Amino acid sequence: MAHLDTLLNDLVIANRILANQDIVDAYGHVSVRHPAQPNHFLISRWLAPDLVTESDILELDLECHPVTGDQRKLYSERFIHSEIYRAQPEVGSIVHTHAPMVVLMGVCGEPLMPIYHMTGFLGTGVPVFDIRKAAGMTDMLISDAARGKALAQSLGDKPAVLMRGHGGVTVGRDIPHAVGRSVYLKINAELQLRVLGRKIEFLDPEEARLGERSNANFPKDWDLWKRQVTDKS
Amino acid sequence: MAHLDTLLNDLVIANRILANQDIVDAYGHVSVRHPAQPNHFLISRWLAPDLVTESDILELDLECHPVTGDQRKLYSERFIHSEIYRAQPEVGSIVHTHAPMVVLMGVCGEPLMPIYHMTGFLGTGVPVFDIRKAAGMTDMLISDAARGKALAQSLGDKPAVLMRGHGGVTVGRDIPHAVGRSVYLKINAELQLRVLGRKIEFLDPEEARLGERSNANFPKDWDLWKRQVTDKS
Amino acid sequence: MAHLDTLLNDLVIANRILANQDIVDAYGHVSVRHPAQPNHFLISRWLAPDLVTESDILELDLECHPVTGDQRKLYSERFIHSEIYRAQPEVGSIVHTHAPMVVLMGVCGEPLMPIYHMTGFLGTGVPVFDIRKAAGMTDMLISDAARGKALAQSLGDKPAVLMRGHGGVTVGRDIPHAVGRSVYLKINAELQLRVLGRKIEFLDPEEARLGERSNANFPKDWDLWKRQVTDKS
Amino acid sequence: MAHLDTLLNDLVIANRILANQDIVDAYGHVSVRHPAQPNHFLISRWLAPDLVTESDILELDLECHPVTGDQRKLYSERFIHSEIYRAQPEVGSIVHTHAPMVVLMGVCGEPLMPIYHMTGFLGTGVPVFDIRKAAGMTDMLISDAARGKALAQSLGDKPAVLMRGHGGVTVGRDIPHAVGRSVYLKINAELQLRVLGRKIEFLDPEEARLGERSNANFPKDWDLWKRQVTDKS
Repeated sequence: MAHLDTLLNDLVIANRILANQDIVDAYGHVSVRHPAQPNHFLISRWLAPDLVTESDILELDLECHPVTGDQRKLYSERFIHSEIYRAQPEVGSIVHTHAPMVVLMGVCGEPLMPIYHMTGFLGTGVPVFDIRKAAGMTDMLISDAARGKALAQSLGDKPAVLMRGHGGVTVGRDIPHAVGRSVYLKINAELQLRVLGRKIEFLDPEEARLGERSNANFPKDWDLWKRQVTDKS
Repeated sequence: MAHLDTLLNDLVIANRILANQDIVDAYGHVSVRHPAQPNHFLISRWLAPDLVTESDILELDLECHPVTGDQRKLYSERFIHSEIYRAQPEVGSIVHTHAPMVVLMGVCGEPLMPIYHMTGFLGTGVPVFDIRKAAGMTDMLISDAARGKALAQSLGDKPAVLMRGHGGVTVGRDIPHAVGRSVYLKINAELQLRVLGRKIEFLDPEEARLGERSNANFPKDWDLWKRQVTDKS
Repeated sequence: MAHLDTLLNDLVIANRILANQDIVDAYGHVSVRHPAQPNHFLISRWLAPDLVTESDILELDLECHPVTGDQRKLYSERFIHSEIYRAQPEVGSIVHTHAPMVVLMGVCGEPLMPIYHMTGFLGTGVPVFDIRKAAGMTDMLISDAARGKALAQSLGDKPAVLMRGHGGVTVGRDIPHAVGRSVYLKINAELQLRVLGRKIEFLDPEEARLGERSNANFPKDWDLWKRQVTDKS
Repeated sequence: MAHLDTLLNDLVIANRILANQDIVDAYGHVSVRHPAQPNHFLISRWLAPDLVTESDILELDLECHPVTGDQRKLYSERFIHSEIYRAQPEVGSIVHTHAPMVVLMGVCGEPLMPIYHMTGFLGTGVPVFDIRKAAGMTDMLISDAARGKALAQSLGDKPAVLMRGHGGVTVGRDIPHAVGRSVYLKINAELQLRVLGRKIEFLDPEEARLGERSNANFPKDWDLWKRQVTDKS
C-alpha cells in the first residue's frame, strides 16, 4: 500500500501533467482511491486542475461527502468517481476529460479502435455513454449518483468510456495508469479523426491484448511527464 | 456595479488572455460597457491586444468619440462595439476576432452547431453576416455606424455572429462571459472543421439550453486563464 | 530613404520573426533592396534565419557577388532575390519559405485564393512555378541566374509565387510588407488545405482589392511580432 | 574517424533534439555505430530520450550485451539497432520513433512519397514492415534478434521503414543524417495525411534523387536544432 503522502503528491503532479498534456483545460479532474479506506477517494476541491496544490485535495466517501466536513465547493461531477469506485473494485484511479478530440470522437459515429501498441488497451472496445438514454434531457453533467451509476454501468470493466456531447473517462490500477491511458486515448482519437471515414488497418485484437500487457503501467512516461511539470513550476 | 478600477484591470487581462488563447493576433479587440454610463464603453486605442496596458484604454461614447477628447489613433472597427451596445442593452462586453478557424467557419457553408455542453450557448444558432448585402463591395471592415448597425441587426439577441470573409463577434453579460464564449466558439469551430461534411451528433436544442444554463459565466476558466497570462508577464 | 542601420536591424528582426512565425525552419531567407544602391541587396550569409545577427548580413550585387569581396559561404538560392529585384523595380523586400503548408499548397492542384480581408493581396492570383518547364530535371533549387530569371518571370508583378515541390516566395514594398504577406499567405494556405476539395466562399475580387488597400503594410503586426522575438532573446 | 567524446555529446544532443522536434515522446531511441569498433554501437540505457545524459550512454555489441557488463535496464527494442548495423555496413546511425503521424502513415494504406526536395530521400520508396508476416501474433515489439533481422530485411538499403501499428525507423551515415531524415520524414507524412486520398503532384524520381544529393547531411538544421535544445537547458 502506497503511503498517503506520496499519493497526495502524485495526485497533485497528475493534475499538472493532465493540464500540460492538454487532457484537461479549466475542467476535468483526476482522483485516486484511498489506499487504506477503499470506500473513500481523494480528489481536489472545485478548481481548474493546473491550479491544484496539496491543500486543495479532499477525502470523499462514496456518497461524495467530505469525510472531514470540509465546507469548500466541490466538483459537481464527483459522482463520476464515486460510482465507478463503487462498481469496479479493481479501479484505483480515474481521469475525466473534455479534451476536444475526445469530445469529437464521441459524436462522430465511428468507434475508437487501437492504432498502435501504445493504445492496445482500447482493443476490448470503448463504449459511448449517451446520457439521454439514462436521464432524458439534461445539462449533460454527471451531477448525481443516479447519473454516475448509469455511466459506471456503461463503462463496465473497460478501460475508458466516451460521453456523447461531453468528453470521456479513463480508469486504471493507479494514477500513472489512468493518466497514461488518458494521454494515449487522446492521441489515438486524434489519429482516427485525422483520416475519418478512410480505411485504417487497426491492431488485431490479439496484438492489442499482447501490446497492452507489454506496456504495463507507463513508467517511462510518468517520469518524463513529471519532470516536464516540475521543471516548469 | 463593478468598480471601474477592477474593470479596467480585467479589460487589460482580457486582452492578454485573448492573445494567449489565439483568439486575437495583431487584430481583434475586446470592450466592456461602462458600469456607470451605459452609453459609454471602454476599449483600447489602436494597438495589438497583447500589447495593451491600462494607459491604452479609452472611454468612448456611442458615436465612437473619446469622451476626454483623446487624440490617439482608434480602432477603425470600433463601430462593431458601439452599435451592438446601442442595440442590445443586456450586452456588457464584446469580443471581435480574426481567429483563422472562426474565419473559415464563416465561409464553409455549414452552420456552427453545439458539439458539447461547453458550447451549449451556440444552440440558438449563430448567424453569418454578409457585408455585401448591407453595403455592396467593401474592404470588409465595420468602419462606420451604418455597417455597425447592419452587423448588430444580424447578431440580434444571439451570443455570436460570424462575418463572411472577416472573422466573428461574441457578446456576453460581462468580460469573462464574452471572453469565454469566444474561446469555446473557436474550439467548436475547430472540431466541426476537422470532420467537415461528415455527420456529427450535435446536442439536442434542449440539452444545449440546459448545458448553457449550468455553465453560467466560465468562472473556472477565467481564474486559470488569468494566471496563465499574469505568470507569463 | 531609410537609414542603413535601421534597415540592417530590421532585417535581423525579420529573420527572427520568420522563424518565430514558422515561416522558415533551417532554410528560407529574407532580403531587402539597398536603400541607396537599387542594384544591390542585403541578405544573410549561409545560415539558418533564427541564428542571424547583424554581422552575418552581406551586401550583394545583382550578379550575387558580395560587394566587399567577403569569402563566407552564401545561400545557393540567392538568385531568387537578385533576379526578382532586377525584374521588378517596385519590389523592396523578398521572403523565401519552405513552410510545409505552403509547400503542400503548391502540389495539391487547387489555386490559392483569398479567404478573408487580411489576404486580399492574393486576389490577383498566385502563380505556381514548375521548374521542370524552365530547366528540366533538377534538384529543385534556384541556384543560378537562369533559374532565378524563370522564377521572376513566373512571379511577374504578383505578390507571391508558389514553387512546385519546393516552397514559395512573397515580395513587398519593404520588409514588414514582405514578411506580413508571407505570414498571411501561410494562414490562408492552412485554411484552404483544412477543407480541401470543399466549396469555400472566397472574397469577391473587388473585395480583395479593397481589402488589400485597407491593410496596407501590416504595421500592427510588425510591432507585435518584433516584441515577441525581442522579449524572447 | 570522429572522436568518441564528440560522438557521445552528439548522441546526447540528438536525444534532446528528437524530443524537441516531437519525433520521440517517452519512447523511441537513437544510436550511433562505434567509430573504432564497427560491431559495437552506442545507445542510452532504458530512459525517455529527453532525460538522457552522457552517463546514461552504453556501448553494446551486436548481441545487444553491454561490453562493460553494465547491469542497468536496457531498451527491449535495442535489436532494431543491432540487426540493422549488422545488415547494413554503410549505416552509421539509427532513429526509432512513435511519432503519431508516422504511426498513422504506416496504417493508412498509402505509400509515403516525396513532396519536396527536402524529402528527396524518400524517392526510392519506404517499405512498410508488418510484424505479423515475420512473427505472427506479437506485442508488436522488436524485442529479440529474429524480429530485428526481419525488420532489417524489410528496410534493406532504404533510408527508412514504417512499422505497421508501431512507428518507424530512419537510418543515416551519421547522427545528423539519421536525425534529419527522421524530422523530414515526419513533415512529409503530416502533409500527405493532411490531404489523404487526394491527388498530390509528388517529385519526379529523378528530381528526388537530385534533391537528395543537394541536401546532403542537414548541416544547417543540426546547428539550429542544437542551439534550440542547448539554450533550453
